[in-house]
Amino acid sequence: MVSTIDLNSDMGEGFGAWTIGDGVDPDIMPLISSANIAAGFHAGDPSTMSETLRLAARHEVCIGVHPGFRDLVGFGRRHILASADELVNDALYQLGALRELAHLEGLKMHHFKLHGALFMHAAQDEEFAEKLTSALAIVAPNLAIYCLADTAIDHAAKNAGLRRVHEFYADRDYDDEGNLVFVRKIKQLDPKIVAQKVLRACQHNEVESINGQLLTVKFDSVCIHSDTPGALSLIKAVRAALDNAGIEVAAP
Amino acid sequence: MVSTIDLNSDMGEGFGAWTIGDGVDPDIMPLISSANIAAGFHAGDPSTMSETLRLAARHEVCIGVHPGFRDLVGFGRRHILASADELVNDALYQLGALRELAHLEGLKMHHFKLHGALFMHAAQDEEFAEKLTSALAIVAPNLAIYCLADTAIDHAAKNAGLRRVHEFYADRDYDDEGNLVFVRKIKQLDPKIVAQKVLRACQHNEVESINGQLLTVKFDSVCIHSDTPGALSLIKAVRAALDNAGIEVAAP
Amino acid sequence: MVSTIDLNSDMGEGFGAWTIGDGVDPDIMPLISSANIAAGFHAGDPSTMSETLRLAARHEVCIGVHPGFRDLVGFGRRHILASADELVNDALYQLGALRELAHLEGLKMHHFKLHGALFMHAAQDEEFAEKLTSALAIVAPNLAIYCLADTAIDHAAKNAGLRRVHEFYADRDYDDEGNLVFVRKIKQLDPKIVAQKVLRACQHNEVESINGQLLTVKFDSVCIHSDTPGALSLIKAVRAALDNAGIEVAAP
Amino acid sequence: MVSTIDLNSDMGEGFGAWTIGDGVDPDIMPLISSANIAAGFHAGDPSTMSETLRLAARHEVCIGVHPGFRDLVGFGRRHILASADELVNDALYQLGALRELAHLEGLKMHHFKLHGALFMHAAQDEEFAEKLTSALAIVAPNLAIYCLADTAIDHAAKNAGLRRVHEFYADRDYDDEGNLVFVRKIKQLDPKIVAQKVLRACQHNEVESINGQLLTVKFDSVCIHSDTPGALSLIKAVRAALDNAGIEVAAP
Repeated sequence: MVSTIDLNSDMGEGFGAWTIGDGVDPDIMPLISSANIAAGFHAGDPSTMSETLRLAARHEVCIGVHPGFRDLVGFGRRHILASADELVNDALYQLGALRELAHLEGLKMHHFKLHGALFMHAAQDEEFAEKLTSALAIVAPNLAIYCLADTAIDHAAKNAGLRRVHEFYADRDYDDEGNLVFVRKIKQLDPKIVAQKVLRACQHNEVESINGQLLTVKFDSVCIHSDTPGALSLIKAVRAALDNAGIEVAAP
Repeated sequence: MVSTIDLNSDMGEGFGAWTIGDGVDPDIMPLISSANIAAGFHAGDPSTMSETLRLAARHEVCIGVHPGFRDLVGFGRRHILASADELVNDALYQLGALRELAHLEGLKMHHFKLHGALFMHAAQDEEFAEKLTSALAIVAPNLAIYCLADTAIDHAAKNAGLRRVHEFYADRDYDDEGNLVFVRKIKQLDPKIVAQKVLRACQHNEVESINGQLLTVKFDSVCIHSDTPGALSLIKAVRAALDNAGIEVAAP
Repeated sequence: MVSTIDLNSDMGEGFGAWTIGDGVDPDIMPLISSANIAAGFHAGDPSTMSETLRLAARHEVCIGVHPGFRDLVGFGRRHILASADELVNDALYQLGALRELAHLEGLKMHHFKLHGALFMHAAQDEEFAEKLTSALAIVAPNLAIYCLADTAIDHAAKNAGLRRVHEFYADRDYDDEGNLVFVRKIKQLDPKIVAQKVLRACQHNEVESINGQLLTVKFDSVCIHSDTPGALSLIKAVRAALDNAGIEVAAP
Repeated sequence: MVSTIDLNSDMGEGFGAWTIGDGVDPDIMPLISSANIAAGFHAGDPSTMSETLRLAARHEVCIGVHPGFRDLVGFGRRHILASADELVNDALYQLGALRELAHLEGLKMHHFKLHGALFMHAAQDEEFAEKLTSALAIVAPNLAIYCLADTAIDHAAKNAGLRRVHEFYADRDYDDEGNLVFVRKIKQLDPKIVAQKVLRACQHNEVESINGQLLTVKFDSVCIHSDTPGALSLIKAVRAALDNAGIEVAAP
């Protein structure tokens, strides 16, 4: 049972005049402790990034970069068969771009979390995971790597001497092996049920699989995706449940 | 005083997972008679286009292409200093792309309306207006050109033998010369006032300028932009006012 | 043994100010009978497309559209995990865009050939092949489908009642089963050897596999990729060999 | 008369599989002392950037970022009517992206030079020039600003306390007021004449205007654009002339 937990969400995932989810970044930011900020490849343009950084600063939320596949139309959700080297360059490009804009605001980067299909790719592809974490160990040794425990990138980050932050996914289902169940379209979830699920995971380190199996989960951060339908009410419910249970929400 | 008027709006202006305005195309479509469909350069990807075409067909709304500058991040609102020839090619590219997807759905194109900064450019730049309408006279002689009366494209379309549909802009202000007042950010408008403004224009051919001057307006179509804040309530109010006044909403 | 054969190559694969291969479209166009013209997703912008169409017209070369994955940076060579419906919409978008520009030049489209990774995808994925050819049967029943014999798209095109043009790849190796050997980087080839290979295929319907196995090949068109290193000298050598052997180069 | 001069050129201006000019970066790099590296908006993808950085390092060439308008199809040569704030964010995004990749290679950034239409915009637009240099004074106070003397960005950089490197343009004409003559298409230049022009400028601080007027020029760096036709032979001739005259080529 934990006394403190990190609550992270993806922020700044609009592009130009467009928004996603309900466009509720200003409402979500005060409720979370870590923001994963899109950096231009799957979402996020420089001005949106800059605005999102200032919003995070205003609410003292820790900032991380959220690099994705170069795929605006697909929102980074489609796997692209690219070489590991190319993807490492893409990720560093996005990291540097955000870091420069953060520098202008006087902000330090806190973490690194991949997005969508690139997140899944790094969980499974050892070559990419190793090349990426080796590069990060050189350019950003202090950034925490947000990831699913016991995946390729988790092991690679450990080997590279990087700090890892393991996540619990409040708005996703787990199968009996503890893997995330991929669904094409996330359906509307009940805020109460999600809040109870998070609380149980925080207090008892357990979650029920999609088949009702009891799984042990260990994690440092709870992730709620801002593009899950009704994300704001989910995050509100989770935050309220944590507050009521006396569990502090703070970045690790 | 008219007994029938066209009501047009921009549809399909999302991109991939993103929406604009309130994402209310399905609510707006039943209320209008002509839809200007984005075709990929400022907004709209092939699958969004296809979906928007089917939505229009379901509500028997006439379809037009809505070409813009190649500028996703700027939503086609920023002028780009490109040659007339290049812009004509860009416009025809977008027209053909939409026309092919319409063909698949068994739909015929009804009109052509430029978007944003490209709309303004064609209103002012004679070279572009002439080259564009000459090209359209060859490839699409039956399409109606939606435009502001007495502008470069209006004259060029007339010379090229194209049918023109003159617009009245329900959600924009006019200056004393009858030009549209450009504003960077459209503010929330009162649906009742907008509806009265449209009704007065339809019934008496008059509108008040931003300085209270009385202007005579002649037009074939009322345009309400779907990305104006509260667009849905504006369109609902306008449609109700027209219905109550016994003015039929139908494409020209 | 044939008396006439088609010779096709990819044309218009630059983008804006950029070129690929040696930028030798004007030199290659007079030597071929069918041009596959890029249409904006992997290469080719509207003005390049228009210029390429005029170049083809000048040399009386038959024109086809060459749709690819939406992937400029990867030149359409990287597989993207997209749904069949999305890819069909993407392909039709590109077809229509080119068709409109061709219309302006008074040109009729002759064929349809997918590019790069999308070409390979259609060869293997039955769902995409069927949905694509069903759509083409509606919007473009007269276009010939250029493809590798006995692949998913070949069968689907046959079922959809579309005309197929089977290709022989002059600049690729075949394995013992007659499949193309995929290589990341095409190496410089000897024009003489390529010319002999093509002549032998045309005259005796045979080609040696990469292991020296004798394969029977039946085809209607010889393809030489314009981005193969030294493409111009390869095409010159092949064209000269065909001319010398009295085999006419003409579209099917 | 100088004993040392900087020679700068734009490098890494391909995109994915495409090249520009003659694709001769590897031949030009050994001849110059400063490389302006494209960073993704008008040209240059992350992998091309990384490769270009390594090439520069191999030849001990100083590296600078070369930000442009977001306009791949127009190669950053077309003015886009964007706000100063947006353009500052765009420029910093590009700077940071390159800086991160340079960091991975253990390289320090040396300078900042805008590209194409954005270069011209900063020479003329005081608001952009001031906002940009104010931002650079915070995030990159040690970078030298490459610019034309006595322009808006030159003054703004001076006010912001930034080091400026004034350029002489070997492959452009000057009018009688010392302004660059803009031409849409640079024609092939005679390497001998260009070399003599550079030598005269270095030794006597003078250049003839397009009308034969004698102008005084003061500069710290000679720029030859790599996309000028025959750039390689121009740079070779200039470098040979400087070497022969005993003028050392070195970054300022």
